[in-house]
Amino acid sequence: MEPSNYGTYLVTQESLSDGRSTLEVVEAAVTGGVDVVQLREKGTDTRWRYDLGLEVREVTAAADVDLIVNDRVDVATAIDADGVHVGQSDLPVSVARELLGPEAVIGCSASTVAEAEAAEADGANYLGVGSIYGTTSKDVPEPEDDVGPDRVAEIAEAVSIPIVGIGGVTAENAGSVIEAGAVGVAVISEITAADDPAAATDALASSVERTKRKANERSRR
Amino acid sequence: MEPSNYGTYLVTQESLSDGRSTLEVVEAAVTGGVDVVQLREKGTDTRWRYDLGLEVREVTAAADVDLIVNDRVDVATAIDADGVHVGQSDLPVSVARELLGPEAVIGCSASTVAEAEAAEADGANYLGVGSIYGTTSKDVPEPEDDVGPDRVAEIAEAVSIPIVGIGGVTAENAGSVIEAGAVGVAVISEITAADDPAAATDALASSVERTKRKANERSRR
Repeated sequence: MEPSNYGTYLVTQESLSDGRSTLEVVEAAVTGGVDVVQLREKGTDTRWRYDLGLEVREVTAAADVDLIVNDRVDVATAIDADGVHVGQSDLPVSVARELLGPEAVIGCSASTVAEAEAAEADGANYLGVGSIYGTTSKDVPEPEDDVGPDRVAEIAEAVSIPIVGIGGVTAENAGSVIEAGAVGVAVISEITAADDPAAATDALASSVERTKRKANERSRR
Repeated sequence: MEPSNYGTYLVTQESLSDGRSTLEVVEAAVTGGVDVVQLREKGTDTRWRYDLGLEVREVTAAADVDLIVNDRVDVATAIDADGVHVGQSDLPVSVARELLGPEAVIGCSASTVAEAEAAEADGANYLGVGSIYGTTSKDVPEPEDDVGPDRVAEIAEAVSIPIVGIGGVTAENAGSVIEAGAVGVAVISEITAADDPAAATDALASSVERTKRKANERSRR
């Protein structure tokens, strides 16, 4: 799948799922229409993530949903993921590209225009921009100040690769992120900690789609 | 270098170095005659480890000292290390082998005969056996009970790949680890936290060499 189609993007973190396994959350998100799943699971053993990754790969592949691995290029290769997502403290995008080859999807976190431009120049296929509204996932480190939808608009102006907004995004505020120029929204808690993760995914996907449809109608006039 | 020549093995951890940089410690260890360096640095960013790894690779390559990366196959490839060391909670040896190819050195931690036999069957080139005497490196997780030199002897009987003993090893007790059947000893604190890391490395290397020489003389009689 092209990252320009990453409308609804789940980032996994079993420690935030209120007792559900990540595999259950992923299955529910797939049912609800998620486009891409990032295996994150900060603070866990490599072996645990690898074993989980093999299972998540089966579920996502069967539904034609992309799978991205946070930080670990080796785990991504080992579980046959579609790519990796690197932050500013992970391997450089250029190194990940050299290890993974030209076909892999490489995403990069960016919270400023400078970071976004550097990531694009290094060969990133999409950007994770945030934190937009401040994360509600408190045990996930989010050192940056909230950047708001305006930063998405600034970055969208500066680069030509797709942007996914992350950080405190909900079905209610997702529309503002899309209107600012993001192709999609990435969430942990909004799906992972929801009473009904499938319904939460569907609500998020509907909000994203509705906003895109309206924008298309406006641009056609 | 063949792992059978890993007599003196430094595992890096800058947080235990009392203010010295890992690069300084590695330079001193190289001066003191270390055979192999493992880039460990638990709890640090990937980018920091990658940048450090590039520098450590230069120093070790110039001295013909092997460089092994803890856990991260991707970082090992990116910095052109000689191989990786995986624990029981890291990627399986077989997966690391598939990613790195037949020429790479792959070490595996083992504290039991069963773990040692499994690692050898999966294609490990050497074993890190421990903790022998209980580590003094308190912020390094060492969940196992101390296994003592007797476990080294049991494992040496069961496998044919070289064994490096780790955990609380000093210049004083290294001889017992070698006598039990290890080809070498791996340390963090004994070198990293020493007043004079080069001298500490030399003392450790001398102890290992002296014990091997005596064993050779005995076997020749």
